[in-house]
Amino acid sequence: MQIAILAGGVGGSRFVRGVRHGYPDAELTVVVNTADDIMLHGLHISPDLDTMMYSLGGGIDAERGWGRSEETWRTSAELAAYGVEPSWFGLGDLDLATHLVRTQMLDAGYPLSAVTQALCTRWLHDSDHLRLLPMTDDRVETHIVIDDPATSAESGGPPSDAAERRQRAVHFQEYWVKLHAEPEARQVLLVGIDTARPAPGVIEAINAADLVLIAPSNPVVSIGPVLAVPGIGAAVRGTRAPVIGFSGIIGGAPVLGMAHRLLPAIGVQTDAESVGRHYGSRRDGGVLDAWIVDNADAAAVPRLTEAGLAAGSTDLIMSEPAATAEFIQHGVKLACE
Amino acid sequence: MQIAILAGGVGGSRFVRGVRHGYPDAELTVVVNTADDIMLHGLHISPDLDTMMYSLGGGIDAERGWGRSEETWRTSAELAAYGVEPSWFGLGDLDLATHLVRTQMLDAGYPLSAVTQALCTRWLHDSDHLRLLPMTDDRVETHIVIDDPATSAESGGPPSDAAERRQRAVHFQEYWVKLHAEPEARQVLLVGIDTARPAPGVIEAINAADLVLIAPSNPVVSIGPVLAVPGIGAAVRGTRAPVIGFSGIIGGAPVLGMAHRLLPAIGVQTDAESVGRHYGSRRDGGVLDAWIVDNADAAAVPRLTEAGLAAGSTDLIMSEPAATAEFIQHGVKLACE
Repeated sequence: MQIAILAGGVGGSRFVRGVRHGYPDAELTVVVNTADDIMLHGLHISPDLDTMMYSLGGGIDAERGWGRSEETWRTSAELAAYGVEPSWFGLGDLDLATHLVRTQMLDAGYPLSAVTQALCTRWLHDSDHLRLLPMTDDRVETHIVIDDPATSAESGGPPSDAAERRQRAVHFQEYWVKLHAEPEARQVLLVGIDTARPAPGVIEAINAADLVLIAPSNPVVSIGPVLAVPGIGAAVRGTRAPVIGFSGIIGGAPVLGMAHRLLPAIGVQTDAESVGRHYGSRRDGGVLDAWIVDNADAAAVPRLTEAGLAAGSTDLIMSEPAATAEFIQHGVKLACE
Repeated sequence: MQIAILAGGVGGSRFVRGVRHGYPDAELTVVVNTADDIMLHGLHISPDLDTMMYSLGGGIDAERGWGRSEETWRTSAELAAYGVEPSWFGLGDLDLATHLVRTQMLDAGYPLSAVTQALCTRWLHDSDHLRLLPMTDDRVETHIVIDDPATSAESGGPPSDAAERRQRAVHFQEYWVKLHAEPEARQVLLVGIDTARPAPGVIEAINAADLVLIAPSNPVVSIGPVLAVPGIGAAVRGTRAPVIGFSGIIGGAPVLGMAHRLLPAIGVQTDAESVGRHYGSRRDGGVLDAWIVDNADAAAVPRLTEAGLAAGSTDLIMSEPAATAEFIQHGVKLACE
């Protein structure tokens, strides 16, 4: 059995561990968001790929959900002592080695997919039947448009209307890590997405899959970019496999992260039903055959079903791989009925 | 008073601390060897500049003589866990920050001299009246030609004569750190030296100096490259200031390092007299007005003087800055008599 999974970082990796648990003999291909990638201190950092790799390879800080266990930040502290910006993104000493290897390989001309494969030889074994693919080898960066606090403060007079307000775009990591997603997100830009090509193996994995799963990752900045890479959305719409999505929004709030700060920017309400409608049914040009929400959102199920999207509810908390596996199997059963 | 010093790393930095102690009010310009520089893991490493900077800025590991105090090697261990070569050059976690800042600034287009100045703002203060200049902003690398052990082992038959023996050139750091200077050095190549230009300020500092000092650093791979940068040797030969050299060879052996492994490759015997003759008197086209040897080599003094090079002997062990200052002042007195 072959399973293709579209996923982001922290939530995505917990989801994949659940899939692994529930389908121990399946060949898993995880197509990972790379629009969070950022160059810092001259290093190419791929937060979602690393979270996935460390998590599946046993190197993750389980409590934090990202970064290496037993991490230290000595080099970062030195960079700060040199007064080098940015200081808001902590590069752990262990993590740093991954970025050094990646950057050097990219500089030598290897594509990100080959670099990812090389890094994964340390963390994953052939017997894991699990491979990570970046969504693309091309550079795509999520930028968030926010009101420029500098110009807002300057104005002094009465609040100017929205049209006159100055805005600026910041890298997603700056919005997320430095600004704690506090400024209102006016727009989400996927810089480079139009010319990005799916990484080698991505389309093949979706076409060959017996099952395609969309992890309960952030619909705007994790799953959104993956589906927006030209060719990937179409492959998901066209695959012979059932496509099942899982809601990361439970009871009107994200289980992890701050999706509620970004969904309004793409005109989607922060609830499981709205996100399901946003992904849409494959029969109506969307990407889903089934949408699984938490029991807390069970009321949405009949409305979604009536609207043409098969839906079901279960307990979506990803506490343990076994529990995660259970709700995934529940979703698969629903989709294949 | 302005003093220009030509220097390498470990010995050079002890020497400069002695100069600082002996001439507390002088403006010091240290022209530092950069032919030891190496790119490793995508990072530009300048061992001699860093040793000098950490040493003068109070960040050096005093016992080891190089690298940062309270250093750890967590990132290096991770790089080794990824199987990334080379593993023989340990990059400390604190040290790494220096290389990251340097590499990023160089990649952004700043010359090494500007990067050095930027890094030094953390370690040195204006009130120190001390600046470090790389000998050049251009890439120069010392390579050591050795017999290729692979081909020597392959031959199998009777030892072939030297002409047939295969040789290869290794970066100085590989020769020094990985091979522990064990293979015989057949030749010393300064790759890039012909087209290297002195870094901004170097020639001016030598021309404007009231005193030029040549540190007791390695004559082959530290002082040699500095003097070989087109223009620097000529400036030393032509400056109005007295030029005083100090022997790093005492009693037929180097005080620090492994100069005895390299001097034969340039046809110089490992003794203070031979190194003095190698540098030569300015009256005969050399670079020295006076050559200071250790008391252990006092017998060489009359021979050198007779040969036209003013020489003197004193206690050259650089145990403490005060002791170092004392022998420097001794040399200055001799040269100015």
